[in-house]
Amino acid sequence: MESRAVKRRGRSSAPKTRARATKSTGRRRVPARARVAGGRYLYFFGNGAADGRADMKNTLGGKGANLAEMAGLGLPVPPGFTISTDVCAYYYAHDRQYPPALRAQVADHLAKIEAAVGRRFGDPKNPLLVSVRSGARASMPGMMDTVLNLGLNHQTVQGLIAASQNARFGWDSYRRFIQMYGDVVLGLKPEGNEPDPFEEILEAKKTARGVSDDTDLSADDLREITHQFKALIRQRLGVEFPDDPHEQLWGAIGAVFGSWQNPRAITYRKLYNIPAYWGTAVNVQAMVFGNLGDDCATGVAFSRDPATGERAFYGDFLRNAQGEDVVAGIRTPQHLTKRASVAWATVQGVAETKRAARLPSLEELMPRCFAQLERIARQLERHYRDMQDLEFTIERGRLWMLQTRVGKRTAAAAVKIAVDMVRERLIDRDTALRRVDPASIDQLLHPGLDPAAEKHLLTRGVPASPGAASGEVVFSADEATTAAAAGRKVILVRIETSPEDIHGMQVAEGILTARGGQASHAAVVARGMGKCCVAGASDLDIRYEAGVFTVGGERVQRDQWITLDGSTGEVFLGRVPMVASRGQTGEFRTLMGWADRVRRLKVRCNADTPNDAAVARAFGAEGIGLCRTEHMFFDPERIRAVREMILARDSAGRERALEKLLPMQRGDFLAIFRVMAGLPVTIRLLDPPLHEFLPHGDEEIAHLAAEMGVDPADLSARSAALHEVNPMLGLRGCRLGVVHPEIYLMQVRAIMEAACQLARDKVKVFPEIMIPLVAHVHELRTLRAQARALCDEILAAEAVSVPYTIGTMIEVPRAALTADEIAREADFFSFGTNDLTQMGFGLSRDDAAKFLPQYVERGIFAADPFATLDQSGIGELIRIGIEKGRRARPGLKIGICGEHGGDPASVAFCATVGFDYVSCSPYRVPIARLAAAHAALTR
Amino acid sequence: MESRAVKRRGRSSAPKTRARATKSTGRRRVPARARVAGGRYLYFFGNGAADGRADMKNTLGGKGANLAEMAGLGLPVPPGFTISTDVCAYYYAHDRQYPPALRAQVADHLAKIEAAVGRRFGDPKNPLLVSVRSGARASMPGMMDTVLNLGLNHQTVQGLIAASQNARFGWDSYRRFIQMYGDVVLGLKPEGNEPDPFEEILEAKKTARGVSDDTDLSADDLREITHQFKALIRQRLGVEFPDDPHEQLWGAIGAVFGSWQNPRAITYRKLYNIPAYWGTAVNVQAMVFGNLGDDCATGVAFSRDPATGERAFYGDFLRNAQGEDVVAGIRTPQHLTKRASVAWATVQGVAETKRAARLPSLEELMPRCFAQLERIARQLERHYRDMQDLEFTIERGRLWMLQTRVGKRTAAAAVKIAVDMVRERLIDRDTALRRVDPASIDQLLHPGLDPAAEKHLLTRGVPASPGAASGEVVFSADEATTAAAAGRKVILVRIETSPEDIHGMQVAEGILTARGGQASHAAVVARGMGKCCVAGASDLDIRYEAGVFTVGGERVQRDQWITLDGSTGEVFLGRVPMVASRGQTGEFRTLMGWADRVRRLKVRCNADTPNDAAVARAFGAEGIGLCRTEHMFFDPERIRAVREMILARDSAGRERALEKLLPMQRGDFLAIFRVMAGLPVTIRLLDPPLHEFLPHGDEEIAHLAAEMGVDPADLSARSAALHEVNPMLGLRGCRLGVVHPEIYLMQVRAIMEAACQLARDKVKVFPEIMIPLVAHVHELRTLRAQARALCDEILAAEAVSVPYTIGTMIEVPRAALTADEIAREADFFSFGTNDLTQMGFGLSRDDAAKFLPQYVERGIFAADPFATLDQSGIGELIRIGIEKGRRARPGLKIGICGEHGGDPASVAFCATVGFDYVSCSPYRVPIARLAAAHAALTR
Repeated sequence: MESRAVKRRGRSSAPKTRARATKSTGRRRVPARARVAGGRYLYFFGNGAADGRADMKNTLGGKGANLAEMAGLGLPVPPGFTISTDVCAYYYAHDRQYPPALRAQVADHLAKIEAAVGRRFGDPKNPLLVSVRSGARASMPGMMDTVLNLGLNHQTVQGLIAASQNARFGWDSYRRFIQMYGDVVLGLKPEGNEPDPFEEILEAKKTARGVSDDTDLSADDLREITHQFKALIRQRLGVEFPDDPHEQLWGAIGAVFGSWQNPRAITYRKLYNIPAYWGTAVNVQAMVFGNLGDDCATGVAFSRDPATGERAFYGDFLRNAQGEDVVAGIRTPQHLTKRASVAWATVQGVAETKRAARLPSLEELMPRCFAQLERIARQLERHYRDMQDLEFTIERGRLWMLQTRVGKRTAAAAVKIAVDMVRERLIDRDTALRRVDPASIDQLLHPGLDPAAEKHLLTRGVPASPGAASGEVVFSADEATTAAAAGRKVILVRIETSPEDIHGMQVAEGILTARGGQASHAAVVARGMGKCCVAGASDLDIRYEAGVFTVGGERVQRDQWITLDGSTGEVFLGRVPMVASRGQTGEFRTLMGWADRVRRLKVRCNADTPNDAAVARAFGAEGIGLCRTEHMFFDPERIRAVREMILARDSAGRERALEKLLPMQRGDFLAIFRVMAGLPVTIRLLDPPLHEFLPHGDEEIAHLAAEMGVDPADLSARSAALHEVNPMLGLRGCRLGVVHPEIYLMQVRAIMEAACQLARDKVKVFPEIMIPLVAHVHELRTLRAQARALCDEILAAEAVSVPYTIGTMIEVPRAALTADEIAREADFFSFGTNDLTQMGFGLSRDDAAKFLPQYVERGIFAADPFATLDQSGIGELIRIGIEKGRRARPGLKIGICGEHGGDPASVAFCATVGFDYVSCSPYRVPIARLAAAHAALTR
Repeated sequence: MESRAVKRRGRSSAPKTRARATKSTGRRRVPARARVAGGRYLYFFGNGAADGRADMKNTLGGKGANLAEMAGLGLPVPPGFTISTDVCAYYYAHDRQYPPALRAQVADHLAKIEAAVGRRFGDPKNPLLVSVRSGARASMPGMMDTVLNLGLNHQTVQGLIAASQNARFGWDSYRRFIQMYGDVVLGLKPEGNEPDPFEEILEAKKTARGVSDDTDLSADDLREITHQFKALIRQRLGVEFPDDPHEQLWGAIGAVFGSWQNPRAITYRKLYNIPAYWGTAVNVQAMVFGNLGDDCATGVAFSRDPATGERAFYGDFLRNAQGEDVVAGIRTPQHLTKRASVAWATVQGVAETKRAARLPSLEELMPRCFAQLERIARQLERHYRDMQDLEFTIERGRLWMLQTRVGKRTAAAAVKIAVDMVRERLIDRDTALRRVDPASIDQLLHPGLDPAAEKHLLTRGVPASPGAASGEVVFSADEATTAAAAGRKVILVRIETSPEDIHGMQVAEGILTARGGQASHAAVVARGMGKCCVAGASDLDIRYEAGVFTVGGERVQRDQWITLDGSTGEVFLGRVPMVASRGQTGEFRTLMGWADRVRRLKVRCNADTPNDAAVARAFGAEGIGLCRTEHMFFDPERIRAVREMILARDSAGRERALEKLLPMQRGDFLAIFRVMAGLPVTIRLLDPPLHEFLPHGDEEIAHLAAEMGVDPADLSARSAALHEVNPMLGLRGCRLGVVHPEIYLMQVRAIMEAACQLARDKVKVFPEIMIPLVAHVHELRTLRAQARALCDEILAAEAVSVPYTIGTMIEVPRAALTADEIAREADFFSFGTNDLTQMGFGLSRDDAAKFLPQYVERGIFAADPFATLDQSGIGELIRIGIEKGRRARPGLKIGICGEHGGDPASVAFCATVGFDYVSCSPYRVPIARLAAAHAALTR
């Protein structure tokens, strides 16, 4: 646990002012914080000591706090300082002005860095270069901007060349700096559809020189490029590129703060519910270089495998590369460990000699640095008691740590790591439960590809985020959003992804990229979203303009179906059939067992078939909360009898048709009751409007008329008579029961006869008959009296005892508002939050796609209210319903059925307001169990 | 006034037990009353004294209490006694058993009647005959059963013949008794479609004797008929007709109590909100005979004209007739006063000599009895301080009063009588206001027939209930219900009506009968319902089976249109155009003035055109509460621009089309603001989904495409793309404003430019811009900020000041539930109770006709929630909305728009929960004003 970790970290030499600093940040809102005027804004780290600590994330941001912590632990961290989030708050509260005291503090701390590294900022002989990076409280990968090599100008570049003995390195660093600064700070972006103008210059130079790789350009080439870059900036922006390192520094600091409010940061925050007032910190740190030669490298490492959770050191690196190259996925990186490298080569069919020569592991290349890095990873994991994601650079054989943070991981890894760490006595069970996001385990439960299915393999990439997905190919995030809004399933195919693609990744079933590895943007974000991702499938030749990719001679066009296996990295043509999940490991079962011991909310399933019921029971469902009887009616054998019933001219004709359905329905319930023996089964009587069972087109009507031997005109007229302007608000649910009592009575008879038969066989059955769409207590009173009379008649005739109950759905706003009246006639309530949301918002789920995505996008609705329960509006109806219902009938059993029952945030709400159980689709049962445990832990 | 009247009535000699008796009834519920076991059950009246009083209606029923009161006043009332409503309560609480003490009390009181009239019950020589009638607390005309001539058997009929010296009378009385008792007590009703079997026997006898009238049958014929009647009963029911008068009496008492729960009584109670626990009393009274010869008569009288309210004695009678003949409408009755008789003859074109000979008035026939009756009517009106409806019988020149009650009247009469009585100092203004039912004045406000229109007169009948109506002819109540449910307007045409027809009268526009006069069932019920009725149009030859009536050689078939003028009694073929009402007399204006001084709730109108606004302002509207802008868009000139806007491919195209609409909309608002100068005008921005403006059929689409010069397939596709499964819950209201901001901005511009123009002309304008269908505060915040920015821009540009506000409709349940959040962004709330009811109930108004009538019929819903606000469910949403809204914004202006704003019960609710105003259609404005006054008076 974090708090224990913090206590034990007492050895880091914190300055005297720490207590006051911590106090001045706290959890207060912007206005209070923004008023802090003459306080402490800067926190130094380096040389085995630090002003800050890991628990000061609110002030220092995640990156800054962890840099301080690492420095405090004595790890090799390039010295630097963090400008606190208070400055960001002040900045936005004061019309983008800094606190007056800031400049002096920055100068002081810059001097401390200079002293630590023995170089001076702006020194033409031996210049100090710095990186400027953002660092918010929560990790926001790729969302904020970074500037490297800051401090270079025409004079200091000569100093860098002198110090590094490497002119090419010097000019390359300078051109990278101008490019990055020009983009991020000065805002020189491509216009319209043009390619990146900096890259164009670079490409033109390569063409002119007849080379294909950046590394083939000479120092002179790169020097010329710096001039061209500066000219470009002058021409496009009308400004001179700043030469003064201090001006550069303040520009970069301003850009970091400014980027806190850029659109993609705002989108990300909205996605992950990060409040705007948190603000970001700025980290200014002495540069170290991974691109000074072959004794240099830069990379990322994980203390355990973020895909599987295996307790194995894991990561990627690039030799002779700088900073963001690994994350950006520009070159395919090499493995840290020999074991991983060999395994990869085996999968790819690369010969060992070729592997060792061309893509050796860090373990083989730089064994000393590798050992040190592995040691540090272990130390940090023990220290933080969680899996760590590290960034490092090796400069001329010397290891520097640039970042540590809690590593993102797949759900499978999260489960395994959590359970393993309990076994390793690093954390306790409650912490283990909290470590696994209930929403994320969705990916463990969904089916994988059917191993027996015939598959057409297109290619193989890096298995970047597990699970499997099929969808139509789209090539841009916008295409993805449009297609998804139209209800299509899509796979987003990109050369590489960037933060601009997040909205498309969100709606895609899966992501396929041609570049990048396990740590690429696509991989990290996809894992966070619980989406399947295959990255770095480098055989792919993607042509955005043509809307096509080719691989191994095959062309796949926009809108063709492909299937991804994120666990193997395989990409298949077409739709591959799925089978049940492979995520239910022993660790998973262990964790779910702990969840069950903690939670107070029961979890049931929505299941209409014996098969669904069996799956759900295997997933731990404690009963059926919603068994929809209408789905049974669509069975081809039955639909005819259903239609006869609908088309009957009188209730006698209806009863004859229902006679035919009775044995079938009884059979349904027999099978379901048997699967759920010993557990309650809530059966909802017929709900949809009758016209849903009739064909609509002229041709289908003619066909059916012929089949049934009726006049097509008659059938057409009957179908037209049943037509409704707003079927959602029409003759359905209990209204059908009131108007045509014989339908419900047939269903009740089927339920009770099945129950009696099993009760005689000593099978324990607990039928709960549920009457839908009740708006007024009189509807329920009428139907319940009829149903009860029939039940009691059957029980008396069969001479067995079955503990049945009759309750209602609360899915019409009026029912919630008059729940006191309704509770007097109901043995239980089940909130049907789908319809309650539709009616409460006045929002048809079938029609909302026209504007709902835009509403969510623009923040008019915080979330899709059909996915996550709207707690303030619909939640208020639920609170009223529960309060009134229980006031009239203390101890009333109350559940929720509908999609929200499997949404973790909604489950937490259900636990808070006093539900007895939630009910959700079978595959969501474990999610709900874990969410219920989380709810119990946070109460 | 009622209470003053009661106090002054001290002179009636009340018995000692009165106080205790009154106490034992009170207002307690059935169980408590039913427990009364040995109390007082019977109340005697007659001989100038009575045990009861008019204020004991709860115990004695209306009829019994008034009989007692009249007896107490010394008026000529045949002696009798009332069995109290406590016995009814006891009866139903004890499985239809009587209290043990009842038999002895009945015997005692029967003896008192015998003593008073000097005849004995069951005496073969000079028998006492009695009537047994029901009498509930509230007047329920025709709804309960009556038995006359009770006490006759084969022996006593001889005594009656001896005493009356009239064998024909004796046998006629006996056959009437058997017929009535056989029907009402023994339950011998026609089976299926057969004619009444008693009437069949009667008809057969007339045919055999070759006569056409009952009165032409001889005493012997009638004697034979009694035997046949008894044989019929024996054959059909397997029982012997009871000969024992006491058995007859207890059978009749049981039948009266039993009839309290018969279906038509239950229907009536539901219609008029009479609780079942009230029960009925039973009145047993010595018979007097209006059919002993030409010096006998029976009739009804009103102390003022119930149709016009004129202060003139008024009524009908039949000479030599019994009991129910007048009310049943079997013979067309004669007028009481010569004046009325002459006036009638003039209208009908009957010569004076013919009138005086064939249909003379009572005034002319029996001047002494007439004068006494008129005196009594005046006395009772002064006594009760309200217009009285009397029943009387003249037996051999002697007047007997059988009933008095407050007379039903038309709305016009109610207004005139109330205002006149204030002038006569009989009542005060508050009482006058309470005397006029707000719902009833609807008939004063609806248009009458256009006097200038060409009309095709079919016939003339009795002007039985004023107003005018057009509809398709239907011949039965069931036909009427079916047609009305399908949205058709119907006129119910019947030979005569009976309580079985009430459900058809309810849904019909008007009622036309061939028989009966001002006091017939049709007339009384139609006036109560505020429906137009022409009664006794005796030229009509109605053939139910053929579905046709003929009149003056013309055939009118089922489903043909006819028009009634209930104020003149005229019947026209086809639909006659209507003009504004004629009901706004000086008395009406006086009464409305009093209402305005009393009420606290403001009344606005829903008006979309300058004309509607002008009508409403003339009716006293204090502003426009709802100006729907979409209706303006349907104008043929504009629909094209609207369609261009809808079909535009981008927002630039939309803006071009909107440019065309702008000047038109501005013109609309200019005109409306001008009419409503000085008053607030709430304008709702565009609400319906855009597809409502597009044609749907293939042909219409092709036509429009040609007209607009676009590809029909394109247009069809666009129309299909706009299609919605549940348009009620789709892309409409503020959602349109969010998705297509340019539409609302055009409308806001039109409003503000019009307002500025008038403000410069010194016309006072108070525009209130209303944003519809808000579900979430963010929608309102976004749209309001846009609208406000534009308004302020226009005001600044035009350099005038207009006090505009921007508010919202509360019509989505979620808006009411989150009204605190929404109020922070709203200058006012207007509850859109139509949509709130649709969404709150989950009930589409367009589809509800399939089951809503059945729901209301069966009492599942107490009333149609679209006509009368559902106070417990939707009302709860409103209470929550008001409470939260005002908590967040004290003093928030809150109104209601939609149909409920003109429904008196809903207006009362609005007054209670704190609305500032109601808004309703122009013709309902006076109703709302009066209802608001009622609400203020009852608070």
